Order: sequence, then C-alpha cells, then structure tokens
Amino acid sequence: MKNLIYMISMLFLLVACTEKNNEVKEESGNKKVKMILDLDTGIDDALALAYALAHPDIELIGVMASFGNVTMEESVTNTLALLDMLNHAEVPVFKGADRATGEKEPFHVLEISRLIHGKNGIGDVNVSSSPRTANKQDGVDFMIESARKYGKDLMIVAVGPTTNLNEAIKKEPALKNLVGKVVIMGGALIVDGNVNKYAEANIYQDPVAANELFTSGTPLTMVGLDVTQRTKLTKKDTQIWRNLGTTSGKIFADMVDYYIEAYNITSPRLNGCALHDPLAVAVAVDPDLVKILTLHMRVGTSQEDWGRTIGINEKMNDPDPNVSVCVDVEVDEFVTRFMDLLSQLFKAN
Amino acid sequence: MKNLIYMISMLFLLVACTEKNNEVKEESGNKKVKMILDLDTGIDDALALAYALAHPDIELIGVMASFGNVTMEESVTNTLALLDMLNHAEVPVFKGADRATGEKEPFHVLEISRLIHGKNGIGDVNVSSSPRTANKQDGVDFMIESARKYGKDLMIVAVGPTTNLNEAIKKEPALKNLVGKVVIMGGALIVDGNVNKYAEANIYQDPVAANELFTSGTPLTMVGLDVTQRTKLTKKDTQIWRNLGTTSGKIFADMVDYYIEAYNITSPRLNGCALHDPLAVAVAVDPDLVKILTLHMRVGTSQEDWGRTIGINEKMNDPDPNVSVCVDVEVDEFVTRFMDLLSQLFKAN
Repeated sequence: MKNLIYMISMLFLLVACTEKNNEVKEESGNKKVKMILDLDTGIDDALALAYALAHPDIELIGVMASFGNVTMEESVTNTLALLDMLNHAEVPVFKGADRATGEKEPFHVLEISRLIHGKNGIGDVNVSSSPRTANKQDGVDFMIESARKYGKDLMIVAVGPTTNLNEAIKKEPALKNLVGKVVIMGGALIVDGNVNKYAEANIYQDPVAANELFTSGTPLTMVGLDVTQRTKLTKKDTQIWRNLGTTSGKIFADMVDYYIEAYNITSPRLNGCALHDPLAVAVAVDPDLVKILTLHMRVGTSQEDWGRTIGINEKMNDPDPNVSVCVDVEVDEFVTRFMDLLSQLFKAN
Repeated sequence: MKNLIYMISMLFLLVACTEKNNEVKEESGNKKVKMILDLDTGIDDALALAYALAHPDIELIGVMASFGNVTMEESVTNTLALLDMLNHAEVPVFKGADRATGEKEPFHVLEISRLIHGKNGIGDVNVSSSPRTANKQDGVDFMIESARKYGKDLMIVAVGPTTNLNEAIKKEPALKNLVGKVVIMGGALIVDGNVNKYAEANIYQDPVAANELFTSGTPLTMVGLDVTQRTKLTKKDTQIWRNLGTTSGKIFADMVDYYIEAYNITSPRLNGCALHDPLAVAVAVDPDLVKILTLHMRVGTSQEDWGRTIGINEKMNDPDPNVSVCVDVEVDEFVTRFMDLLSQLFKAN
C-alpha cells in the first residue's frame, strides 16, 4: 500500500514537473540574454566567443579586451578579426586594462602562454585582420552603462584576469547587484592549479583584483579547473569542422589543432585540449550543466598562496555566500552542445 | 490546474516519504552498529569517545591508540582512564603505531599540541588512572579480525593520523570493502589548513599513510576542517555539564574549558572550541548531518604540499570516486545532538 501511494505520487509529480519545465522553456525561448564577454583572446577565448555567437539564447552586445594569454592590444586585434570572420562585425570591442592591478608596467605575456596559444595568441593561424578598431568608449564605462541599461537581462562573462570586472565594480559598486549574472573562468578549489599546485593562470595574473572581486559580495559563478579540465576536445572533433569546407571551419580547426599540440607537450595525458573558456559561457546560460557549491571565498595575495582561490574559514557559517563554485559538470552533454553549436556556426561562415 | 496537480502530488509524496522514514527508523532501531575508534586522546578525542559511548545506535567494540595529539602510550593511558570513569571498562584498548610511516624514531608530540591539549593531553585535568592496561592483541590485527567478524556491521572511525588504518588495509587489502564504513577526521579541501595554509594536523603528521589510504580505493568519508571548524562549543555549554554535579560532568567541563582557553589563544575569533573528532563519529552514524562531494583524492608528500588533501586532476572523470568529502554540515542540529547525548552520559556517571 505504501509503495502504491509512493508510486502514484511520483507519477503525479512527474506530470506536474514536466508541465512546469515546458512553461519555463516557453518563457525563456522568447527572449535572448544580453552578454558582455571579457576576453584575453587566446584560443579558448576564441572558442568562447564562437560559443556566445552560436548560442540561440545569447545576444553578444560587446567584448571587453584584457591582457592575459596575449597583451590587451593583441586581444583587441584578435577579437575584431574573429568577429568579422564570423560575420558579426556589429559587435563592438572595447579596450580594458593592459596590466594587473597596481602594476607600473604593461603586462608581459608569459613564455608558457606564447607556447600554448601561439605567438599571435590564436595558434599562429592567419586570420584576415579587421578594418575596424576598438570602440572609443572605455570598456569599464561600457560595462557600467550596460548594467544600468539592461539590469537583470545582462550577463558578464570574464574568462581572463578579473582586472576589468573588478575595476567596473569598484567604479560602480551597484553593478554587482544590478546584473543578472557574473561568471568567471578561473581558479581551482578541489584540484591543483595549472601555474603551480595552488594557482590557476587567470587568477594568478591578477590575484589582487580577484581577491577584491571575490570578497566584494558580488554574486559570482566560478568556473575553474575543477570542471574545465574535465571537458576535452580532440582532433577527431576539429576534423568535423575542417570537413565543413568553410573559412571559419578551417581556421578554427587549425587553431584548435595548434592548441591540442601544445597540450600534448604540457599535459600529454589529456590527449586533447580542455575547453576552459567556452564552458564559462555555457554555464552562464545553461546552469544545469554543472553542480555548484556556494562559499565565501578569498584569493591569496601573499607569496605563500599567490593566486590560490579558497574558502574563508571564519565565514563558513555566515549567510549568503556569494561565490558559486562549479564542482561537477555534465561533460558529454556540454561537449555535444559545444560541437553542435560551433559546427552550425562554422557551416554558415 | 497545473499548480493543483503539483500540490496534490507533493502531498502524496510527503505522506509516502513520512511512512518510508518510519519504516527505516523502526528497522535501524533494532540493531546497533559495531564501532572501532582510532584515537590520539586528546581533548576532542575524549569528546568523540563520549559521543560513541552515548549514542544509542553505537556499540563501541574497541579503541585503537595512535600517536598525534599525544604519544601512543599516553593515548592508551588517557583512553583507559576515560572509559573507566564513564563506566565502560568493558571496552578494550589496543596499541597502534607510535610513529609515522617509515619513521625511525617514535613520534615527538609538537609543542602546539601540548599547548592545545595540555601536558597530559586531556587539559591537565586529573582523571583517576585505570587499573587496566592495553589489550595484548595488536591493534591492527584486532581491526582486521573485527572486519572479518562483523563485515558491513562494522564502522571504523579514525580521528588521528591514519597510520593504523592504513597499516590494517595494507596487511589485509580485503578490509576496505569488508566493513560498513570508514570515516576519518582530517584534511581540508575547501578551506585553509590549521598547520599551514594547506595542511590539517592529523594528515600532516603522516601524509605518507594518508596518501596510501586515499589512493587505495578504500571507500572513505573525510570529515575535515571544511566542516569541523563550523561546529563550536562554548563555556555556556560546559557549564551545563558542570551543573550536573557528577564526576564526569565536572571532568569534561574542566577539560573542554582548558581547550576553549587554548582556542582563545590560537583562534581568538572562534570564541569557543571546534568539535573536530566527535563530528566524525556523528557523521558515521548520522550521515544526514552533512553534504558530501565525492572525489578521487591524493595527499601531498612533497615539500611543497606536505599533508595537503586535494582532488586528482587526471582522475576527475574516472568512475567510482572513493572519497566522500563533507563540505557542509547542519551545525545547530549536530551541536544539539552532541549536547543532548553527552549531557545524558555525564548525568549518569
């Protein structure tokens, strides 16, 4: 009898939930979210850009350029070229910071970054340069203006150092509660870092900014190595793009093949490359892809823990933790969506 | 209409679940689990011992002594004295290792441990010494024998270095799948350590053993600083024990007050002491107290990461992760259960 009641109730619940899901889908289908990407373009940044352009629920309203994998200026150049190639010359690109918080000199790209992303940042692949230049408006101001304009309809996804994002929030503290979502690719909580055992590269390049951001109370989704290293692309996948016979299919296949070769040197066990940056874009619009753990967090800025992302012992019982750390990911589901979306985009361009 | 269906189904489900819970409770009420504690007794070890003795679902079949907060010999002495005082002289105490894996010299107790737990390990409180001595059987052999005898009805809870537990599993690899549950207090995944930024004390004292244990495939529940530092006892609580007017009430109140004073020096912000070891016992029998994250983990044994507990990057997509890391805890629920159980125990002794 008990089991019968249980089964009937599960059946009712299933019907009810299915109907509810349909309702939600119908609603979300009507409206795209506005997105600003902050990119240090970079091969996986290029993939994040393509993912945002390809996703039916995203309207990319602008890209902010950051130093990191490349210099800020190179990020502008690469982003403009890629946008033009993908027939999205309507998307403006804004200049961000060219150095880490408090630094006197512009950022000097690390040798390891040149190895992984190529000398030009996009796998030494030759993409026709854009006739466009960066928008005259300061990127930080564009971010703040967009937050005021679009409010909860705006998502900011930063996949390089968090310097620009942090500057925007310092300049307009209201931003942190104005926008719909802030997602970063960076950090490592439950696995080793990729610069050293503790630190991930994006955070390592400006831990001062990251620490200010993490401890600012900004609701933040952290897509770190904890999940990004689980998602992998191989040359079998890039061959699919190459076979499309299009310019963008070939360019992106060449670019990612370069990236995979670099991974073969740095992480021979992976037998492919990790999809760090595009996963952050995917999580922003499809949060069902990940499991999260919410925490109050800080970022190490001492010599001992430079760039380490970690929970704050003294705040573990405090209410409203602001950082949602992704700790598990639906790998196959994401890679399938990724390949579907990008293949469609490259087929048309 | 949809909402009505949803409400009806939730109501049915509630009825069904309530009935199911009652069924489970009736079943578990009939049978106690057998438990072996591995203690480096230690003030919070004493609390873990009391918790196990007080819990209606636990039959403590033996205690294994470890080095750690005290020497192994001191752990034997303290444990026997506490068992006798609490009218459980039937529980045998076994000698374990007196040093970390591969060490030539017996373990030398750290100054900081003497500060936190007192010179005698139990807050310099005078507990009548026991006329008993350690059981003649080797502790590791007792553990293996018990695993064979009780199988899934046996839980092993180790709240000091994992040296003994690891030795038992190395001597009898079948142990890891024989027993019902293995729980350790140790490690820190999502917060800083307490020895340094990375390492927790129990693990730090024998990371070689811990690494062998974590990577052995043994199903393991890790109750680390991630959760234990959230659970707190104050002098208001110990006053309740003192007011009972019993020997054990006074002794435990004195002991924990000493511990709280030590915490006032090392962690002045806490304003109380953390319930590290008893939480591990509680989680073993009441897993609903915590949220877990399952991982393949390793323990650092290099100079750079000595004693750090961390997920293994290369195994994040592997099936059947063996370590269940506690990442959240029902603080109030646990502290209430803890106070209820221990107050009952101390009232009677």
